[in-house]
Amino acid sequence: MDRKIFHRLFEERIVMLDGATGSNLMQAGMPVGVCPEKWILEHPQHLIKLQRAYIQAGTNILLAPTFTANRIKLAEYHLEDKIREMNMQLVDLTRTAIAQENHRGFIAGDMTMTGRQLQPVGDLAFEELVDVYKEQAQILVEAGVDLFFVETMMSLAEARACVIAIKEVCDLPIMVSMTFNSDGKTLFGSTPEASVIVLQSLGVDAVGINCSTGPKEMEALIKRMVRYASIPVFAKPNNGMPELIDGETKYTMTPETFAEYGRALVEAGARAVGGCCGSTPKHIEMLKKVVRSVEPEATKPVCTRVLSSESAVQEIHLDGNFLVVGERINPTGKKKLQEMLRAGNMDLVVQMAEEQTERGAKILDINMGMNGIDELEMMKRAVYEVISVTNLPLCIDSSHVEIIEAALRIYPGRALINSISLEEKKCRPLMRIAKKYGAMAILLPLSDKGLPENLDEKKEIIRRLLEIADEEGLSRDSLIIDGLVATVGANRMAALETLDTIAYCKNELQIPTICGLSNISFGLPERINVNTAFLTMAIANGLTMAICNPGQAMLVNASLAADLLLAKEDSDNIYVENVVALSQTEQTAAKNVAGVSEEGSRV
Amino acid sequence: MDRKIFHRLFEERIVMLDGATGSNLMQAGMPVGVCPEKWILEHPQHLIKLQRAYIQAGTNILLAPTFTANRIKLAEYHLEDKIREMNMQLVDLTRTAIAQENHRGFIAGDMTMTGRQLQPVGDLAFEELVDVYKEQAQILVEAGVDLFFVETMMSLAEARACVIAIKEVCDLPIMVSMTFNSDGKTLFGSTPEASVIVLQSLGVDAVGINCSTGPKEMEALIKRMVRYASIPVFAKPNNGMPELIDGETKYTMTPETFAEYGRALVEAGARAVGGCCGSTPKHIEMLKKVVRSVEPEATKPVCTRVLSSESAVQEIHLDGNFLVVGERINPTGKKKLQEMLRAGNMDLVVQMAEEQTERGAKILDINMGMNGIDELEMMKRAVYEVISVTNLPLCIDSSHVEIIEAALRIYPGRALINSISLEEKKCRPLMRIAKKYGAMAILLPLSDKGLPENLDEKKEIIRRLLEIADEEGLSRDSLIIDGLVATVGANRMAALETLDTIAYCKNELQIPTICGLSNISFGLPERINVNTAFLTMAIANGLTMAICNPGQAMLVNASLAADLLLAKEDSDNIYVENVVALSQTEQTAAKNVAGVSEEGSRV
Ligand SMILES: [Zn+2]
Ligand SMILES: [Zn+2]
Ligand SMILES: [Zn+2]
Repeated sequence: MDRKIFHRLFEERIVMLDGATGSNLMQAGMPVGVCPEKWILEHPQHLIKLQRAYIQAGTNILLAPTFTANRIKLAEYHLEDKIREMNMQLVDLTRTAIAQENHRGFIAGDMTMTGRQLQPVGDLAFEELVDVYKEQAQILVEAGVDLFFVETMMSLAEARACVIAIKEVCDLPIMVSMTFNSDGKTLFGSTPEASVIVLQSLGVDAVGINCSTGPKEMEALIKRMVRYASIPVFAKPNNGMPELIDGETKYTMTPETFAEYGRALVEAGARAVGGCCGSTPKHIEMLKKVVRSVEPEATKPVCTRVLSSESAVQEIHLDGNFLVVGERINPTGKKKLQEMLRAGNMDLVVQMAEEQTERGAKILDINMGMNGIDELEMMKRAVYEVISVTNLPLCIDSSHVEIIEAALRIYPGRALINSISLEEKKCRPLMRIAKKYGAMAILLPLSDKGLPENLDEKKEIIRRLLEIADEEGLSRDSLIIDGLVATVGANRMAALETLDTIAYCKNELQIPTICGLSNISFGLPERINVNTAFLTMAIANGLTMAICNPGQAMLVNASLAADLLLAKEDSDNIYVENVVALSQTEQTAAKNVAGVSEEGSRV
Repeated sequence: MDRKIFHRLFEERIVMLDGATGSNLMQAGMPVGVCPEKWILEHPQHLIKLQRAYIQAGTNILLAPTFTANRIKLAEYHLEDKIREMNMQLVDLTRTAIAQENHRGFIAGDMTMTGRQLQPVGDLAFEELVDVYKEQAQILVEAGVDLFFVETMMSLAEARACVIAIKEVCDLPIMVSMTFNSDGKTLFGSTPEASVIVLQSLGVDAVGINCSTGPKEMEALIKRMVRYASIPVFAKPNNGMPELIDGETKYTMTPETFAEYGRALVEAGARAVGGCCGSTPKHIEMLKKVVRSVEPEATKPVCTRVLSSESAVQEIHLDGNFLVVGERINPTGKKKLQEMLRAGNMDLVVQMAEEQTERGAKILDINMGMNGIDELEMMKRAVYEVISVTNLPLCIDSSHVEIIEAALRIYPGRALINSISLEEKKCRPLMRIAKKYGAMAILLPLSDKGLPENLDEKKEIIRRLLEIADEEGLSRDSLIIDGLVATVGANRMAALETLDTIAYCKNELQIPTICGLSNISFGLPERINVNTAFLTMAIANGLTMAICNPGQAMLVNASLAADLLLAKEDSDNIYVENVVALSQTEQTAAKNVAGVSEEGSRV
């Protein structure tokens, strides 16, 4: 199915999904403990009958019964060699059901988790999992599915692997459905917000929730997704939680009750509904009757500039409170960190991640650029180590395209790329990577000719970078512009030019800005004063974020005070809660001055 | 003579003054040690002959021989009771000389120092001196002088007393002439710059230099005066330094040489020239011949916004480096200072003046407002104490009109008034005082209704204050506007409104701005951060100066860094030379936080 046709479906109506498969087949006699796909193929009439009933009830998109037909799951039954024929035959069953119902309905290739855990939690390598998913996805494409339905995902990292795999074999529409526990998080800790941000930025066509703890509880989760959704959100709840009655688990919610909750889900913003465990064609039929009459409200994401880790999102607003991008995880000028990295020791990286998180950084920059190490491998290790101790989103910082790609590929969130300049060889490749992995990107107004000589030249480079970004399909909302801070000691106009750039980006382009700080004061004594004054002025001019050291209390306090003075939202409370006492300031400032000097200049 | 006619003289030509009186009369037989005025009256033909010769040589303004005919000087010869008749008769002599030369030339009443020293250096009270000068001036007016010529002034404080006296008895033109030693300072330490600033702001009609160390050395001094002069500058040098020849002091410079130096003086900007000790009618005749052909260049003061102490000036520029007005000498919230002032002890005031000077304040605020003391007397004492230890100009700060006047009257510089708001009872009286004493004034956008409710109301009050200032004849260049800092804890828009006011004053009105800092952060923790961020933003918005504590290194460093970043003139060197090391910063900042809190809110 062409993705445009998929999206048109959602414009026309509330799309109906199907109900449960497994629980209905068990009712029909499928025993516990068998390979479901094998049993289905041995008893094809049960599935065909069930799916015909779903079509009759109004289902538009049917899931082919290929749910766990991936190599790892099939291997549990020693059926891994049958993967191709099983997936082909399973899709054929659904095709048959549709054919028998006057060819109404689309076939979705159904995929889910493998049961093995990804690194760094488990031992499954990301590329191994991608390969497993690619294998099944390739077969499903050949079997003729119209779209993909990746469901019951309790790991956002695994959902990403599956989406990347599918996208590397075809351009069919992809719906991804996460499953949340009663605490509103997936088993692996992801929230609805993080899920929708990460998946839609990766280019999936619809994102939703299935199974979980029933239709009533799902309403709040759907609302949380809809807040950030630019694509259709769907709900496929189980029929309430099963009860144990006479030794059997039973789902007791009536189709009428189920359908009433379904109405609430649509009112909450769901653009497609169906059922999961315990639901039957009756439930889908009632659901369809109820939601048919609901006029869905038009929704609009509250914020489209959002970064995310696997578990938490960070909104970025043009007029929002200033954000610190922690700069510490970068070996440039840090001897001790260099030594430890050469020895393969990540302890200091982990400590820096923890400290910066504690000191209020909102994003962490990761740069592994130094001699004598395998930067690509160390970057991947650093990403895994850092995400194990912080839920802040990351900013991937490298001068090598392949290292940025490697990090973005494994990173289970929506990262920021630092940075894309107007260098012939790297500009488009990096933008394509940003697009593919759904990253946001910092545009740096530098070209192959070097630093722009004046503000006009800087603006011209920015204009050209935005033009290329448009050509490469990067949305404006995924871009941040670096103010490009030169050294005031070398160019007396350096600060004014950067301040003008910041104001220009904010007021005329309406694009957020970032800048580094330490460069401005290179060569001057007591640099913290210059950095702090520059940061204060830059925030007053509209600076959105800066790459700096959140351990420098003078800087952080200045940014808190600046937000307060600019009357930004809740900034008075934020100031009072976060300002660091001056006694601490002094100690930290003194400690960090050495750090600033040591680290030297940075563009 | 009408003052307009006086000024027209200078538009038409290089005005010719006369040459020496005393040295020529001594040549004619006047012995050393006599009362010159008495000898002249006993030998009137000598003076008449000399003055006729000056008229013939081209002199336009003749000095009546009343030089030391003041009560104090005459008392040295027990002639104080003859003051009226002597001054009347002396003026008559000059009138006779003019009559005999076809009524060509104006008579200037000549006045000079009394030989007694003013407080705080000597024991002569300011008002006593004013009375002495008023007595002589009143007689001279009655004797029919056309203008006044106050000359050979080695004390700017005494020159001020004389000018104030003359202005309190008449509205005749006043020329004031200072005498400088070879170090370019008067005996009492005033510079040509301080002299011209203080005297022209006081409303004299021409300012110049007489006697001193000869015409050659005077060129540089005249140039220094012309830099700041909005009124004609004149030069009346002695005829070189006298040499001791055969036991007699002789002036040996020829009229030709003297006249050539005179050309240089006119080229340096002098608009009137003459001679002092040792010069003769021949010298004046040659001088006239030479300068007649010189086309004087139009000059314009480099800066008209200038404060001055008795010895040093402080320029104020819209785009200049930020200026700290030291706020410490103010008992509000300072228990120890209050105790000492109640005990009549000025030690802490002196210490605060010295410390603030050392820490880089450019202006010192003096406020003696507290209960339990005679504020007027303490203000005068404080002014005298402070000017004894610092050469910074003062900012006179009181809520009482009469206290501000008392301070301005005795202050031997050009002070700043803090402040004039739109209060019915005080606004015009304070503006008249500013005008009379030549002070600059801070306009505070407050009215009898209290704080303006928004920026528009604030602008309206400013507009009205400027209108009244125009009506009262205060030049725009003598005004500074207070941004009026409210408390951000009470009004979330407080900082933005003040920043807008600052930008409005700078960009639209082109008037410098000042503000207090501590009020903005009232009630917040770690206030220094808020004050520092606010100061940085305010400087970026164009703030000219702030009333703050120069001991707070965080603030001062921020202002130095802000100037540096804004690429203000020489600000890179100023930063490097003045930034306070962070270790000091910390100590001072910590020490001063208590101070800020203790001092509380301040409008
Ligand atoms: Zn389920
Ligand atoms: Zn006497
Ligand atoms: Zn003389």
